[in-house]
Amino acid sequence: MSIAKVTPGQTRIGWIGTGVMGLSMCGHVMKAGYATTVFSRTKSKAQPLLDAGAAWAESPQAVAAASDVIFTMVGFPPDVRACHLGATGTLAGAKPGSLLVDMTTTSPSLAVEIFESANAQGVHSVDGPVSGGDVGARNATLSIMVGGEAEAVAAVTPLFAVMGKTIVHQGGAGAGQHTKMCNQIVVAGTMIGVCESLLYGYRAGLDLETVLQNIAGGAAACWSLSNLVPRILKGDFNPGFFVEHFVKDMGIALDECRRMNLALPGLALVHQLYTSVLAQGEGKLGTQALLLALARISNVEFKPKASSA
Amino acid sequence: MSIAKVTPGQTRIGWIGTGVMGLSMCGHVMKAGYATTVFSRTKSKAQPLLDAGAAWAESPQAVAAASDVIFTMVGFPPDVRACHLGATGTLAGAKPGSLLVDMTTTSPSLAVEIFESANAQGVHSVDGPVSGGDVGARNATLSIMVGGEAEAVAAVTPLFAVMGKTIVHQGGAGAGQHTKMCNQIVVAGTMIGVCESLLYGYRAGLDLETVLQNIAGGAAACWSLSNLVPRILKGDFNPGFFVEHFVKDMGIALDECRRMNLALPGLALVHQLYTSVLAQGEGKLGTQALLLALARISNVEFKPKASSA
Repeated sequence: MSIAKVTPGQTRIGWIGTGVMGLSMCGHVMKAGYATTVFSRTKSKAQPLLDAGAAWAESPQAVAAASDVIFTMVGFPPDVRACHLGATGTLAGAKPGSLLVDMTTTSPSLAVEIFESANAQGVHSVDGPVSGGDVGARNATLSIMVGGEAEAVAAVTPLFAVMGKTIVHQGGAGAGQHTKMCNQIVVAGTMIGVCESLLYGYRAGLDLETVLQNIAGGAAACWSLSNLVPRILKGDFNPGFFVEHFVKDMGIALDECRRMNLALPGLALVHQLYTSVLAQGEGKLGTQALLLALARISNVEFKPKASSA
Repeated sequence: MSIAKVTPGQTRIGWIGTGVMGLSMCGHVMKAGYATTVFSRTKSKAQPLLDAGAAWAESPQAVAAASDVIFTMVGFPPDVRACHLGATGTLAGAKPGSLLVDMTTTSPSLAVEIFESANAQGVHSVDGPVSGGDVGARNATLSIMVGGEAEAVAAVTPLFAVMGKTIVHQGGAGAGQHTKMCNQIVVAGTMIGVCESLLYGYRAGLDLETVLQNIAGGAAACWSLSNLVPRILKGDFNPGFFVEHFVKDMGIALDECRRMNLALPGLALVHQLYTSVLAQGEGKLGTQALLLALARISNVEFKPKASSA
């Protein structure tokens, strides 16, 4: 089925999932002039969008029935599966020629499964997970990693462009999700490097802020060092990105690794250490909480202020 | 013993170790107007400095006897030990009030040992390992991580300033070396993250240069991603930084960890994987060769060009 050109005031948008990311992203789409129908598991979370003129639908199926392009930005792979493939999912309502766009970070294999199910009924499907976090969503500076057929990707690109700054077509169905996994695997490495380094310096009696002056600009330079260490040194373990979401992402990558016969021992180790963060009931902390897990392993009481004394 | 103010044309410099780093660094000191005496295990490597007017001495002892401030930039901890504490080492020749400055990356515990031995005969000692590599040494943009007593550090700082851009006093003897370990521990994490990510993307059939467009600017951003991945994608495993030197550094950090009762599982894993690179006779390759070790583990024939096809 060919895809109609996406046009403000004409193309009807559906949006499913209005958490901290989805709320901002859908808001940008609405501001660009698209009539939008929303559904969220917790209706109150969608209220700002309803106040701004979005219509409400009672299920993903109902959203799809009222829309030409249907976005999902939900939580975990089972949520994504239910949203699209469930009894009241989008594919139960979507008409031929419509377009599903899952922007959740989820399994590449699931993205392929949704693509194939959609295809079987003349519906298009694109995967477009993002990086950039809540700040990137709010400021429309997300990096969007896109998988799917060229025509569908071209059709949805004007909509991506109102949500993000870097939009790259990576390949067929699932390629966006695979690219997001590449991103998360690097992050897993930088996180363990940064947290182990801090703990080493702390144990050696160094002043960690002074250490940063020497190392933040060279071969050790990384986003985690610049952005998370200042939080850690203030004892701030609040989430920029939730531990439980990162554990989900690494679990997906490891599942794909098993499928592809690929051993990634570093990723596996970091996944296990973060699992120990979950085991301590700290899944709602930010990813910098890896430091707490490492400190526990060695029975170190980490009080960064003490090291500056 | 108080330390004479370092003055061009007056303070006599000794320099031991004229490899790729030491040659550039000593050259900067000479250009700043200091009379210099050099020693190197392989005399021919010192020739450019001799041509520029440096005096030659037959041993570290002889260098020290002719100098007020004596630098070492050699290879491994046993070399550092021999240079300073050996029968013909600097301490056999140094007069009271002189100053030893080891800029090799070596063991913090060894730095303390040299400091104490020097102290016992009225000689000062500072540790000042660097990051920034051969390019940083050539352009005098090194980051220098300094440990030692305040007076000695203040005395040598004008000399550091002709070799580097970022000079930070981190604490007492050994604190410079500990800071370098902090740097290398972060690098260990970024290296495994980057190499595993590339291998994942390769196995998933992505075009790795296209992947970079999506991930290089966000939470995965790091020096290794920006600087080493382009080399890897060209199949270039030549050294910026030698595998065998990185294995040395990580080994030192792990020794210190054992001494401090600190478990760093990520560092230990990366050290083991790099040991497998050594075991393949690849110690003279650059640190990006970690990718080769990871590819072998999973029996992946890594040919990056093929992935762009």
